[in-house]
Amino acid sequence: MRLYSFWRSSAAYRVRIALALKGLDYVYLPVNLTTGEQRGDAFQVLNPQGLVPILETDGLLLTQSLAILEYLEEVHPSPALLPPDAAGRARVRVLALGIACEIHPLNTPRLLNHLRSELGASEDQSTHWYQRWCALGFAALEARLAVEAQTGTFCHGEAPGLADVFLVPQIANARRFQVDMTPYPTVCRIEAACRALPAFDRAAPERQPDAPAGN
Amino acid sequence: MRLYSFWRSSAAYRVRIALALKGLDYVYLPVNLTTGEQRGDAFQVLNPQGLVPILETDGLLLTQSLAILEYLEEVHPSPALLPPDAAGRARVRVLALGIACEIHPLNTPRLLNHLRSELGASEDQSTHWYQRWCALGFAALEARLAVEAQTGTFCHGEAPGLADVFLVPQIANARRFQVDMTPYPTVCRIEAACRALPAFDRAAPERQPDAPAGN
Repeated sequence: MRLYSFWRSSAAYRVRIALALKGLDYVYLPVNLTTGEQRGDAFQVLNPQGLVPILETDGLLLTQSLAILEYLEEVHPSPALLPPDAAGRARVRVLALGIACEIHPLNTPRLLNHLRSELGASEDQSTHWYQRWCALGFAALEARLAVEAQTGTFCHGEAPGLADVFLVPQIANARRFQVDMTPYPTVCRIEAACRALPAFDRAAPERQPDAPAGN
Repeated sequence: MRLYSFWRSSAAYRVRIALALKGLDYVYLPVNLTTGEQRGDAFQVLNPQGLVPILETDGLLLTQSLAILEYLEEVHPSPALLPPDAAGRARVRVLALGIACEIHPLNTPRLLNHLRSELGASEDQSTHWYQRWCALGFAALEARLAVEAQTGTFCHGEAPGLADVFLVPQIANARRFQVDMTPYPTVCRIEAACRALPAFDRAAPERQPDAPAGN
């Protein structure tokens, strides 16, 4: 397997965690998003959308982190990242999609750049924008995780799974943008449990070969 | 089954198509997003995020259209909306996520309202914003659908599936915002094939009980 990644990309981070949890080895291929390498000819051949991650496996070039994770779950089912029951799987996917669709797309670098360049948003306004959608999304997650019986040490029960794989990178991102996480104690408790695991540690941005010294 | 829906919600439209394709009957419960019913106490109990659709089935309240569709596929597998092979399923999910994560979240009413109220965007600027993200997303879809061997009458082969379920509502939405669809002939050809099917027709916004007369 080969993973096209950027150390600070939260979508790539998701895939790195899943690969580590499943104990799958891969070659790390850095794509420097800060210098626009994703818009260069070499990368455009792989993904005209210019988005990381891409996982090359079984002769396929897989994009979209959630599609990659569902593929890994099907082809490398153990350890499972989804619960055995349909209701549990739906709950975990809802939690993951609450990040993948309600937080992350509203806070990508290309979107924030566009806010500034096209709509004339100031730095403060774009940070406020980021914080607003994070707050909405994390509040919704906290509301569920804090009260639902299925919540355990992790988002769903006592083993890390797909929802945790989405949660930890989004929190790392939020912290970079000074989002106040104190209103979400259950979210933060789960994050701490995840971060204590070697798989999450190995996948962390600062551990990647393309992370600049001192970040 | 009971579906909380709004006639013009493209996320609810996805679920309506899937239910129709699978031949599943349901009670239609309209939630009027234009009067803010989703923020009222009655609906907030069901979904604090104030988002439609919600599918009530098997004692569950399922949110997030993609999670609902994956659940339906698992519990009511026939006719299948996902291909039988893992590579095919990944391809279909990538196409669906190219809409669910790269187009739709950037163009929701709550986001466009926020652009206007908080960043002072004009009507023109918010329409331009909408059109920009649509154009990027549809161009990426067209690039794949036009050349990949797996594309058939529908996004993937000769039967409608999950990617088509996402595609048709997003195009309906784009047309409302005067997005020029002529650069995407494959996308439009597939849309026409879908629209010729009774299931897509029954699920269409203008066919719903809460659609205003003359829309």
